[in-house]
Amino acid sequence: MFENRTEIRVRYADTDQMGVMYYSNYLVWFEVARTEFFRSLGFDYRALEKEREIYLPVAEVECRYRASLRYDDLATIVSRVKNVGNSRLVFEYEITLGGKTVTTGLTKHAFVNRTGKPVAIPEDIREALIRTIPSE
Amino acid sequence: MFENRTEIRVRYADTDQMGVMYYSNYLVWFEVARTEFFRSLGFDYRALEKEREIYLPVAEVECRYRASLRYDDLATIVSRVKNVGNSRLVFEYEITLGGKTVTTGLTKHAFVNRTGKPVAIPEDIREALIRTIPSE
Amino acid sequence: MFENRTEIRVRYADTDQMGVMYYSNYLVWFEVARTEFFRSLGFDYRALEKEREIYLPVAEVECRYRASLRYDDLATIVSRVKNVGNSRLVFEYEITLGGKTVTTGLTKHAFVNRTGKPVAIPEDIREALIRTIPSE
Amino acid sequence: MFENRTEIRVRYADTDQMGVMYYSNYLVWFEVARTEFFRSLGFDYRALEKEREIYLPVAEVECRYRASLRYDDLATIVSRVKNVGNSRLVFEYEITLGGKTVTTGLTKHAFVNRTGKPVAIPEDIREALIRTIPSE
Repeated sequence: MFENRTEIRVRYADTDQMGVMYYSNYLVWFEVARTEFFRSLGFDYRALEKEREIYLPVAEVECRYRASLRYDDLATIVSRVKNVGNSRLVFEYEITLGGKTVTTGLTKHAFVNRTGKPVAIPEDIREALIRTIPSE
Repeated sequence: MFENRTEIRVRYADTDQMGVMYYSNYLVWFEVARTEFFRSLGFDYRALEKEREIYLPVAEVECRYRASLRYDDLATIVSRVKNVGNSRLVFEYEITLGGKTVTTGLTKHAFVNRTGKPVAIPEDIREALIRTIPSE
Repeated sequence: MFENRTEIRVRYADTDQMGVMYYSNYLVWFEVARTEFFRSLGFDYRALEKEREIYLPVAEVECRYRASLRYDDLATIVSRVKNVGNSRLVFEYEITLGGKTVTTGLTKHAFVNRTGKPVAIPEDIREALIRTIPSE
Repeated sequence: MFENRTEIRVRYADTDQMGVMYYSNYLVWFEVARTEFFRSLGFDYRALEKEREIYLPVAEVECRYRASLRYDDLATIVSRVKNVGNSRLVFEYEITLGGKTVTTGLTKHAFVNRTGKPVAIPEDIREALIRTIPSE
C-alpha cells in the first residue's frame, strides 16, 4: 500500500490553555497531509484547482483523539487512500509521536467543479489513486 | 428537549481561497456552542476548569458538511446533549443558515482531572445535563 | 468622533499554553471590528468586494499588547478611522476589558481593484469615512 | 551577523477568500521563526518555559505586507535579533519568496517569570543573543 509520511511540528499557536494542541488544528494537519499525498503521487493540488478547475471539498470528517501533542512536538502524519469512487474519495490519517498513535481520522471528499457540482475524478488522477490501494 | 441556540458570524479569517468557511473552523464553533450551552444551564465552563479543576477534552469528533458558509453569514448553532454517561458526554450540533442545515456534528468528551485521568461527572452537573434529555 | 464598539468573547481556541489569548488573534479581532465599523456606517463590506469589486487588503499593522485576555473574557473593541487618503485608509483600535486597555493597534489599508491595483476610494465611502473624523 | 532561515509552506487553511495568505497568519510564522532561531542558537524555547519558567510574551508587533503569498508557496523567513536589553529583546523578520521580499516585521518581547513579572535575561541566553549582533 502506498502511503505518504509527512513530518510536522506543533506551533505555539496550535496550543490552547490546556497545554496541548487544540482539537481543530488536527484537521489543518490532515489537509497538509493531503497536499503532500498528491505531491508524492506526482500531482500538484494547487494546479488541479487553478488549471483544471477541480476542487476537493471535505464532505465529512471524523477524528479520534487518543493522546495529546504538545508545543514543539515533531509528529508524523501517515495518509493513505481508503476508497476511490466515481467522484468520491476517502482519505485515512494516523498521527504518531515517537511511534505512538496520537490521533486517527478520515475525510470524505467529492470532486466538484467551480460551481460546486460533482464531477467524475479525472482518469489520470483516478488511476493513480487506485494504484495506491493494493486490494482494489 | 433543552437546547442552546447561539448566533455566530463568519469572519474573513474563517474563509479560504475556495471562498467559503474552512472546514476546521466549524469545530471552533462547536466549542463556542459548548461554552454557551453550559452557560445557559447555569454553569461557567471557565470556573469548572479553574476552580473545580475538571476538564472536558474532546475524545472524538464527527462533522458532516452539507452546504457552505460565506464571509459575513450570520449562522445559528443549535447544540444539545445526546448522551450522558458516568464520566462521558456526547454533544450534538446543527448549524443552520436561513433555516437550512449547513453542517451537523457531534463531539464525545471525557471528564478528566488535571492529570488527564477520567473522573465521574460532578453530581450537580450530571443532573443538569440529564434533565436536558427528555427520554432518559 | 464617530467610532464603533463591538463586543467579542475570547474562545478556547484563541488561547495558547500561556493561558492567554494568542497574539495573532488580536488581528482577527481588528478585522471583525472593521466589518462592524463599515456596517455601522451603512456599508456592507461583503457587497463592496462582491458587487463593486473593491478590496481593502492590509498594507501594515501595528499592535501593542499591554495586558492579557483570558478564555471567556468579554472584551470591547473600539475602532475608528484615523486617516483617509485618496486610496489609503488608516484604522485605529483599542481593546478594553472592564474599562482597562488591553491592546491598541492600527492597520493601514489600500483600496485596490480585483487585480490588486490601487484605486481611488469611491466617493460615497470616502465622504462617509471623512465625516467620522471631526478634525478633518 | 547570525540569522536563522526557516522554510515554510502556505497551507490551504492560511488562505482567505481573497486567495492569499490571511494577514494574521504571518505572525504565526514569526513565532515559528523565533522557535527555530532559539534552536539554531542551541536553546530549546520549550525547555526555557518548562524547566526555567521563563516566558517571552510579545509586547509589540509590526508587520508590513509588500506582496502576497498563495497556497502552497514555499517561502523563507529570515529572523535575526535587532536589539537585546536587560530584560527586553527585539526580533526582526523578512519573509521572501523566490528572492523577493513579501513581508517584513518585528516583535518586541519582555522576558517574564511565571507571574508575568519582568526578569533579567539569563546570562547564558543574553550572551548568545548578543553574539548574534556584530555591531554591539
